[in-house]
Amino acid sequence: MKCRVCRQRAVIQVKRHHANFCKDHFIEHIHRQVAKTIDEYKMFDAADRLLLGVSGGKDSLALWNILNELGYAVDGVYLHLGIGDYSSESLNLSTNFAEARGLKLQVSDLPAEFGFSVPEAAAASRRAPCSACGLSKRYILNQIADELSYDVLVMGHNLDDEAATLFSNVLRWNAEYLARQRPVLPATNEGFARKVKPLIRVAERETAAYAVLQGIDYEVDECPMAAGNTINRYKEWLNRLEEDSPGVKAGFLFGFLERGVEHFPNADRPTLDSCRFCGQPTTSDVCAFCRLQAVTLRA
Amino acid sequence: MKCRVCRQRAVIQVKRHHANFCKDHFIEHIHRQVAKTIDEYKMFDAADRLLLGVSGGKDSLALWNILNELGYAVDGVYLHLGIGDYSSESLNLSTNFAEARGLKLQVSDLPAEFGFSVPEAAAASRRAPCSACGLSKRYILNQIADELSYDVLVMGHNLDDEAATLFSNVLRWNAEYLARQRPVLPATNEGFARKVKPLIRVAERETAAYAVLQGIDYEVDECPMAAGNTINRYKEWLNRLEEDSPGVKAGFLFGFLERGVEHFPNADRPTLDSCRFCGQPTTSDVCAFCRLQAVTLRA
Repeated sequence: MKCRVCRQRAVIQVKRHHANFCKDHFIEHIHRQVAKTIDEYKMFDAADRLLLGVSGGKDSLALWNILNELGYAVDGVYLHLGIGDYSSESLNLSTNFAEARGLKLQVSDLPAEFGFSVPEAAAASRRAPCSACGLSKRYILNQIADELSYDVLVMGHNLDDEAATLFSNVLRWNAEYLARQRPVLPATNEGFARKVKPLIRVAERETAAYAVLQGIDYEVDECPMAAGNTINRYKEWLNRLEEDSPGVKAGFLFGFLERGVEHFPNADRPTLDSCRFCGQPTTSDVCAFCRLQAVTLRA
Repeated sequence: MKCRVCRQRAVIQVKRHHANFCKDHFIEHIHRQVAKTIDEYKMFDAADRLLLGVSGGKDSLALWNILNELGYAVDGVYLHLGIGDYSSESLNLSTNFAEARGLKLQVSDLPAEFGFSVPEAAAASRRAPCSACGLSKRYILNQIADELSYDVLVMGHNLDDEAATLFSNVLRWNAEYLARQRPVLPATNEGFARKVKPLIRVAERETAAYAVLQGIDYEVDECPMAAGNTINRYKEWLNRLEEDSPGVKAGFLFGFLERGVEHFPNADRPTLDSCRFCGQPTTSDVCAFCRLQAVTLRA
């Protein structure tokens, strides 16, 4: 197995690109894929203030590294979700990564600042843990980006994440979610920062390989709350499909972005009010996060 | 395991309906599902002249039986595709079925009438066999329905067929095919009969069970040309999904029909001309079937 570029011994095969790569050319390949994605979808430029959601996992740390190497100044924000050792370990790994590279990492602590953890919120609200977690993450990241005047919120969703979410939305034909599944969500007047996903051309095994090859120490364990969640099951299914037909996953996602998404125009968003408790934009009187918090603290 | 209706011993479990059925109530259930589909999509009524595409397999023979039991007068048309013993066996089974019930079966013979078989056409045109077969079937069924003045062409596609085709179209985001994936395609001025699929609420294992329980002798073997074809792989794949989440397949298909299809409006069809050779409607000078025939006879 030889590198497509230099014919030296390859360390990884990327079947959907019909290519094998040595370490250096794989890293170059990944950087090029991300640069291409940023450019193609006009995600941001050097003048924008960028804030990256950092979980301590392979995707967000790999992306932080890539963006740095591409010359972008990016700050990180870590959300402590109160998921036992998993959260403390992920925080350590994120802090170590940032300190070793002189990068700025904001830390927000859900239990300390809002009085509850994701497991507590999931139990009290009877939501799936990933649902309570996603809601809290979106809320706090938006809030921090707004308070600290960042222009762009950068997220580490990879090809597998996006394809699995798209599959889930298609299985249910959820037109509203399909309309919002885009690599760039523009900023809104009400204080939501622009949201971008520069990793969508990079598969999960590739971000893992990139992190390993770059010597990035990341949280290897899956979140203990996510065991058996639907998106992970869809990922496994799509991976089996990918084994049979390399490229099918990327074809599905980019086919949607190129030809499908136009059939799901962004519906007029409802006028947003300010949440009675926190002042953040919401479609109702009290925002979903404040309701989650209230239910959890009452329990 | 007891029948949902009569609490006698059940012979089949239909997980997505959370139900078990004895023989009689399963048959009644299937009849009701088909009657509901015909009604809901306004497929046809007693005044329409109906022509059913009959392959000798479980779906078309089961559907013929069901439509009879529901009181519709339906003629059948069998297409001999020249696929060796498989074709002769399927023809025998279709003829036996029709004769035993006093039903009228038209037979069209591709090799005898058009000078070539599906395997020959596939080889000569370098199409996948299922593609050459589908093209020939659509052409000849349309032609016969037109010549013999049938109002409606009835097809035996079941839930699994439709879900797999939808999945295939979604994986590729083929908007044109998605726009045409409907339970009813209206008749056109140029001579295409209305096309309907009354079996779309019935899964493949249910049409098989129905045929067995009704003592219908059908072609059990898969078409030897279809081994490993893409749609069959998607069916297997969706079946694994269905095992984990009963109902996901029907949810996917009917979610599309209820909420998805509106996003893929039927584009204005191009004006159709008459094929220079056969006079059938076509978008080009010579229709795809006549081109397939010419390529094959030349080979």
